[in-house]
Amino acid sequence: MLLASKSAAAQLMLDEFDWPGVLRAADDLAADFGRVTGVNGTVTLAKHTKPPVTLNASVIYNLTHSNTFARSGAKSTGKGGVIIAGTLGRVPLIDDLVKSKKIDVSEISGKWEAYMWQTVEKPMPGVDEALVLIGSDKRGTIYSLYDVSEQIGVSPWYWFADVPPRTKAAIYTQKNVRIIQGTPSVKYRGFFINDEAPALTGWMNVNYPKGPYGSAFIADFYQHVFELLLRLRANYFWPASWGSMFNVDDPRNQPLADEYGIVMGTSHTEPFMRATNEWTTFGHGPWQWNVNNESIIPFLRYGVERAKPYESIITMAMRGSGDTALSSSIETTELEDIVDTQREILQQVYGNLSVPQMWCLYKEVQAYYNMGMKVADDITLLWADDNWGNVRQLPVGNETERSGGAGVYFHVDYVGDPRNYKWINTVQLEKIWEQMNFAYQRDARDIWIVNVGDIKPEEIPISFFLDLAYDASSISANTVSAWTKQWSSQQWGPDAADDVADVIERLTKLSNLRKFEQVDENLYSVLNYNEADDILAQWQDLAADAQKINGTLPASATASYFEMVLQPALAGANLYDLYISTAKNQMYAIQGRNSANSMAARVLDDFNTDHQYTVDYNTLLNGKWNHMMDQTHIGYLGYWQQPMRQSTPGLHYVQTLERGLAGDMGVSVEASLGVVPGDDQYHPNSGESLVLPPMSPYGASGQRYIEIFNRGVNDFNWNISTDPFVKVSKAAGSISPKPEADSQTRIYITIDWDKCPPGSGMSVLNVSSSRDYGTQYSMPSVMIPYNHTSVPSSFKEGFVEDDAHISMDAAHYTRTAKGSGSGSNAPHYINLPNYGRTASGAMALMPVLAPSLSPRTAPALEYDFYTFTNTSSTKPANVTFYLSPSLNTSPKRPLKYAYAIDDGKPDTAAYVCDNCNDDKTAVESSQYLPAGWETAVGNNAWSSSTNATIPAGQHTLKFWALEPGVVLMKVVVDLGGVRPSYLGPPESRIIGK
Amino acid sequence: MLLASKSAAAQLMLDEFDWPGVLRAADDLAADFGRVTGVNGTVTLAKHTKPPVTLNASVIYNLTHSNTFARSGAKSTGKGGVIIAGTLGRVPLIDDLVKSKKIDVSEISGKWEAYMWQTVEKPMPGVDEALVLIGSDKRGTIYSLYDVSEQIGVSPWYWFADVPPRTKAAIYTQKNVRIIQGTPSVKYRGFFINDEAPALTGWMNVNYPKGPYGSAFIADFYQHVFELLLRLRANYFWPASWGSMFNVDDPRNQPLADEYGIVMGTSHTEPFMRATNEWTTFGHGPWQWNVNNESIIPFLRYGVERAKPYESIITMAMRGSGDTALSSSIETTELEDIVDTQREILQQVYGNLSVPQMWCLYKEVQAYYNMGMKVADDITLLWADDNWGNVRQLPVGNETERSGGAGVYFHVDYVGDPRNYKWINTVQLEKIWEQMNFAYQRDARDIWIVNVGDIKPEEIPISFFLDLAYDASSISANTVSAWTKQWSSQQWGPDAADDVADVIERLTKLSNLRKFEQVDENLYSVLNYNEADDILAQWQDLAADAQKINGTLPASATASYFEMVLQPALAGANLYDLYISTAKNQMYAIQGRNSANSMAARVLDDFNTDHQYTVDYNTLLNGKWNHMMDQTHIGYLGYWQQPMRQSTPGLHYVQTLERGLAGDMGVSVEASLGVVPGDDQYHPNSGESLVLPPMSPYGASGQRYIEIFNRGVNDFNWNISTDPFVKVSKAAGSISPKPEADSQTRIYITIDWDKCPPGSGMSVLNVSSSRDYGTQYSMPSVMIPYNHTSVPSSFKEGFVEDDAHISMDAAHYTRTAKGSGSGSNAPHYINLPNYGRTASGAMALMPVLAPSLSPRTAPALEYDFYTFTNTSSTKPANVTFYLSPSLNTSPKRPLKYAYAIDDGKPDTAAYVCDNCNDDKTAVESSQYLPAGWETAVGNNAWSSSTNATIPAGQHTLKFWALEPGVVLMKVVVDLGGVRPSYLGPPESRIIGK
Repeated sequence: MLLASKSAAAQLMLDEFDWPGVLRAADDLAADFGRVTGVNGTVTLAKHTKPPVTLNASVIYNLTHSNTFARSGAKSTGKGGVIIAGTLGRVPLIDDLVKSKKIDVSEISGKWEAYMWQTVEKPMPGVDEALVLIGSDKRGTIYSLYDVSEQIGVSPWYWFADVPPRTKAAIYTQKNVRIIQGTPSVKYRGFFINDEAPALTGWMNVNYPKGPYGSAFIADFYQHVFELLLRLRANYFWPASWGSMFNVDDPRNQPLADEYGIVMGTSHTEPFMRATNEWTTFGHGPWQWNVNNESIIPFLRYGVERAKPYESIITMAMRGSGDTALSSSIETTELEDIVDTQREILQQVYGNLSVPQMWCLYKEVQAYYNMGMKVADDITLLWADDNWGNVRQLPVGNETERSGGAGVYFHVDYVGDPRNYKWINTVQLEKIWEQMNFAYQRDARDIWIVNVGDIKPEEIPISFFLDLAYDASSISANTVSAWTKQWSSQQWGPDAADDVADVIERLTKLSNLRKFEQVDENLYSVLNYNEADDILAQWQDLAADAQKINGTLPASATASYFEMVLQPALAGANLYDLYISTAKNQMYAIQGRNSANSMAARVLDDFNTDHQYTVDYNTLLNGKWNHMMDQTHIGYLGYWQQPMRQSTPGLHYVQTLERGLAGDMGVSVEASLGVVPGDDQYHPNSGESLVLPPMSPYGASGQRYIEIFNRGVNDFNWNISTDPFVKVSKAAGSISPKPEADSQTRIYITIDWDKCPPGSGMSVLNVSSSRDYGTQYSMPSVMIPYNHTSVPSSFKEGFVEDDAHISMDAAHYTRTAKGSGSGSNAPHYINLPNYGRTASGAMALMPVLAPSLSPRTAPALEYDFYTFTNTSSTKPANVTFYLSPSLNTSPKRPLKYAYAIDDGKPDTAAYVCDNCNDDKTAVESSQYLPAGWETAVGNNAWSSSTNATIPAGQHTLKFWALEPGVVLMKVVVDLGGVRPSYLGPPESRIIGK
Repeated sequence: MLLASKSAAAQLMLDEFDWPGVLRAADDLAADFGRVTGVNGTVTLAKHTKPPVTLNASVIYNLTHSNTFARSGAKSTGKGGVIIAGTLGRVPLIDDLVKSKKIDVSEISGKWEAYMWQTVEKPMPGVDEALVLIGSDKRGTIYSLYDVSEQIGVSPWYWFADVPPRTKAAIYTQKNVRIIQGTPSVKYRGFFINDEAPALTGWMNVNYPKGPYGSAFIADFYQHVFELLLRLRANYFWPASWGSMFNVDDPRNQPLADEYGIVMGTSHTEPFMRATNEWTTFGHGPWQWNVNNESIIPFLRYGVERAKPYESIITMAMRGSGDTALSSSIETTELEDIVDTQREILQQVYGNLSVPQMWCLYKEVQAYYNMGMKVADDITLLWADDNWGNVRQLPVGNETERSGGAGVYFHVDYVGDPRNYKWINTVQLEKIWEQMNFAYQRDARDIWIVNVGDIKPEEIPISFFLDLAYDASSISANTVSAWTKQWSSQQWGPDAADDVADVIERLTKLSNLRKFEQVDENLYSVLNYNEADDILAQWQDLAADAQKINGTLPASATASYFEMVLQPALAGANLYDLYISTAKNQMYAIQGRNSANSMAARVLDDFNTDHQYTVDYNTLLNGKWNHMMDQTHIGYLGYWQQPMRQSTPGLHYVQTLERGLAGDMGVSVEASLGVVPGDDQYHPNSGESLVLPPMSPYGASGQRYIEIFNRGVNDFNWNISTDPFVKVSKAAGSISPKPEADSQTRIYITIDWDKCPPGSGMSVLNVSSSRDYGTQYSMPSVMIPYNHTSVPSSFKEGFVEDDAHISMDAAHYTRTAKGSGSGSNAPHYINLPNYGRTASGAMALMPVLAPSLSPRTAPALEYDFYTFTNTSSTKPANVTFYLSPSLNTSPKRPLKYAYAIDDGKPDTAAYVCDNCNDDKTAVESSQYLPAGWETAVGNNAWSSSTNATIPAGQHTLKFWALEPGVVLMKVVVDLGGVRPSYLGPPESRIIGK
């Protein structure tokens, strides 16, 4: 059936007495037809003499009609197909179809937010065929309409991220369509605008008039948010609260939300539907229970009286003022008293306690709960993450039976300890899936709310989080990537989808290695494992690929692409260049290189490029999003809060007008700050020799490097002499003092193992200069320790030691098997592709509901490896496991693993240590988080180490995850050679595979 | 008598058989006449048929005659006065005068290095009158000749520091001159060229050919050194040893030294007249006693066999190779065995043990001595300083009776822990006087040798040290300043002398606050007490004054003035500007000020100015001293050794293309990094108010300041509103974002105490901006806590508390008296003017030989003061004494003081803790120096603190020095308000004085 074309307007038929939000959404759909075909749909309302319900929101509805953004299509005289839409049990238009058995609604009837699509022939006189959309309730119908919008090519982000509608000449439906969309997986799904300055607030201030209390968060803005939420199939919202009062700044806000169909809440720290600022502005006396109840109780009561006409979830209990803990002296009994009083007020105002109530167990509140605080069964327990995307606790035992159920408060943007993260998106979708699937399986299904900062630029994780909340079964560990492709296709079309999705995956993986705000020049090693350069190259490739895609997109798509993909890729890559160039500047200055100065210039270039990307974003589309990229992100000074102004790290300049004391030529080696010739604290005093890390035939990269650089004022020729079996990428050359950026060269060293003597030895590489070496120094040399080893033929497959360590990606295990039990419930590992810090993803124990295991009952991940270094009890090896930064979601079942080398006794570690014992002080600590948590969330990994004695030879490392939630990313066996780096040594060579 | 004029050549008459060194010095004097009058003197040698002694140094003597530097005057036919010069008991020319009773030599006869001047009528046929110079021995005569040189106007530094001779038309002697110059105070006096790269070695390499082993330290250079030593009345020399071999690099070196009259030695670490490099070059096997004696013993024997023809002091014992300790396992018995063997060799080579022998108790060797090692009585014990100018130990008890006596090895230049100091001179003459007078009084009078690095630029301390060694009684604590004036007069004439001396005093005082190599951007506080700016202003004034003097000097004097005064003043001031500007750059960047960027530019300007001063020095006089200023001094990285290349500290840049998050205006206050409006870790989160330190009527400066700055992109007008009794230096203004250097203003705050309410209070100062304060912040304010206090009229004189502390310069005591005893031997304090870190100098206990004292027997320094703050045992005051960095020179008598508040029980502190007990581990520690020594020498002060409970009111602090050597500089009573700074709070207000 032709629904619409550029000469035929789709005909929407609704019932005048359907929910105003439904009628409003139908108007959106009509406009969406216009966005796609150029011709708006028409909306016809079935009229009745007597309304079945009372409507009282017409004032607000008129506001939305005045929305100049939403109505753009032309009119047409041609008629397209008919769409009949309405809410089951509310309007005759639909109920008559059901009564006449033209449609079977049994699959959605009585369900929460379900809907169906069906083509019906002759649904009513004069209509040959119609596509009938029926919602089981108000939002069911609304979602059914927005589903059509999406299907015809309008993204939920058409306005908020400028995604161009996918224009079409004509739109058809298939024959005999019947689609049933059941109840969403999670009952209340939404987001929280929070810490909305400077970006969103700055943008508001130039786009909307301020209300009487100085906030521009008025209904003219919120209508876009409500529409976005509904298009994303969400239903729940916590409004901006930092400098605003949702109900006060604009009296239209709350009724408008209700009309749209949004269930309002307030944040975890704002009880009883009142903003914190309401207390600041209108309250009297201290915000202190049992001290100032005569003011607090009426304050709370007014909140629910004001909310009563509308759909709400009431935030219960209290926290301190301004999102802080209540005073330390508060007792659980006092909190119970607060809630008891609040319940009395609800009973009085509502006449019963059926209004949904939520208690957010945020930060210290969770500790009170765990200490035995009583909570009424019908209050939803909203468990919180740690603000960093790790859910802190989930229902256990009979908690899953509570009538109020449970939910999760999650973050993709945060202001607080140990560091804000709010510049651009850093959230890996694989991580959201892993944590929220865990929560879902553990029955936290009543509320999912995500803190999204300023909304932009968190479009991708918002979409993913809400899609998962809407249909948790639709995405598995293996299909996160498919979701990304599908979502990319929706925004930028099928042709670009795969490439864009690839960029998004790499972008979020790199961004997730560490929050941008915690990246600095000391993070990635410029000395060891080529770590900084490798990461920088990944960013540069990513930025180039993202830029390349941009060239293939139609002009209409570039704005949305820039906002959600290109700007983060370019700005992220630039930020990494800034910090890594700073690290090089600092290293080069220590080493006296002329190139230190060009590196400083590069940092300042990057600093201004960063500004230019901000300008590019803010001036896009004639400044539509001006100020939305105002967030400072460079210049954090060891403090959690954003810097008030951006500033560079310290840049050092060398005196290039003077020659170094040890001549014009300097030579440095991988893994050392030392320079020869000359004195420094990084190699023996006055020694003219540096030592490279050892080389063996099993090196991961197969090479080492040295660098020769100018630290003087003269040209010089350099020449390298080596043993015949040592090969250098270049054996002679000339280096000028200027230009500074070209005043150095890197020389790679490889060994021709066929010619290298067997066993261990030391080769000396001399580097001569055509100039002298200053008044005190002489020709430098580099020592190359080599181990010409080989594994026996009996070692068939596995990792091989090099450089006195073995590094193994978790996913590259040699073998595994299911644990005890049968079928899909038998414990086993799944790979979480792309998850976390390693390219190959991570290994997670499944199923989520598996019981506590032991090495006997758990499946093992086994890693075969071969070592040449003997370790002993006095000089043991160190085995480090890198695990996901997850927390102990079951107080009595801390995350735990066991490991053994060969047939040794398994060593067990509960590596997240808040609930390892029942020590009350642990959960009463100021952070209410486990020891080491700040480091773990910063690193996005727990690292758990033990010593082991491993004789040289063939071995098997066995790893057993003993609790669901354990996710293993990487294992490093340090045989004495591991050097400092952020990510640990890169993966060792695997032979036989 | 006319001695010489531009038309009359002075006639020097000597005896052909006098010491070659005497004849050579006479040639120098003849040339000096030429330097002064334009006409060289003539030298006539009395001839004899039979020489009274054997002369064998003619080859070397010819070398000196070929010296092109020394001979410049024209010849004249006119004859001037006659000077007869010669050595008593050696030549007939003199002995005949004595025999004929024309001169009485009894006052010098038989003395060491004495001489006399006397005008004699008709000394010989044909001579009416002559000035007769008679030396008691070779060097006596040489000194008598150089004395004439100095008197007629030739500085010892005429060549080595380019001091212009003071030209005169004619030179006369007074009538009936008779001057007796007795034996020098110290027998052997000299210096040590050490760690002579890169400066001196670089200079050598471009001025002299290298010897066969690569060193340019040949006789053509050393002749200048020997002449300098003799002109400075020194007689002893340790040659450059780092890359050289004195006896090997040029076979002329040793005979030339002897001919000149120089007694050769080798450094403390080079026994038996052999250079370390001789072992490296010619030795076999390890430098290890009892392991390789078959090589070591002949090596040593050859050294003294080679030295036997010449005057030497033999360095005894052994240290490890390269100026390091012997292996830790060595025992004192082994060292004794080494020396016993060495004594046997001396007996064999010399036939007796009368050759002077020296054992330097450097670093760990002193510990062996203190542990009871036996040392032959006739070996001179050369006590060492700590390399930082603090003598470590001096003779005690019957050690003063030893026939070998004692000496001191001192440093004015050093390479080693905790930090090199070798760029420009940092040594305060007052400190040399205090330490070396102490040493002299304690009978260390046989050898004084000073490590002078590259000689230049240590001209001033070299002169002072050797003058003091020559005549210890000629300089007292009160006449150091007079010496400086006299010395300045010698170099630059009497007109400039006072001004130059003033500059030198201020220069060495400022340089001595901390070695330049240990100054960095974190040293002087840019937050507290205006410390950094005050110090910088002192440097800037000094540089301006030094520059001003330069304008008054004749062109011929500017080179020497630049080398010894102007360059250190300018380069020192510039270095301070560099570091303090860096500190401001870093502070301004933290605060987001636009001016951070101009401060970075200033640092880079300073960095290049530093280079320019180096170039100016190196190119002076057509590059005469090229490379002599090559020493790196910027860019030390927490390591003792010099950086191979100069590099700046870290410079931060703010993003001036973007506005700060809290608007264009920032406000900061004295003593805080915080900025309002806005968030930072330096003031309460989101608070818009900063708090100034408290103000009272007794403030040292009487004012506080705030700063208003631009941290944005727009102009703004600012306006301050205050209480009526608070005065601001400016109440309104406008600040532009550019130019960055002008984008801030400082506003001083004073209180009109007549109008201020009594008691304590808080005044609020609001600072408004014509622009907004960003999306989240509001108008800032500054809190001014004030204490409107007054001392009672009963408090007549003394220090008054302000800002919760009292800071007192030691010299500003209220009263003192002599201790028990009578006359000049009664213990008492003297002021050491200008000494150390305080403007008023320091207070030292005298006499040096006073016995150990107690508070009953010692004199007290009493300081009256008045406090308003009550301290208690739980919140006590802290009393800190700043004392000179001296060490415990008597093992059983550690430096000690006592103090009491009012009539409280005296509290005793032995504040230098190596010998506080007899714990052997203390002296065996790796540094062989007391705990805290590195800090003390860096700070040039010991700080010694205790707590005290001091109620509000009038008090007297009593201080008793209990051992000679205790030098008190400053006392700070912290009543809770002292903030971090390098020098401690500036002196508090004294009333009634």
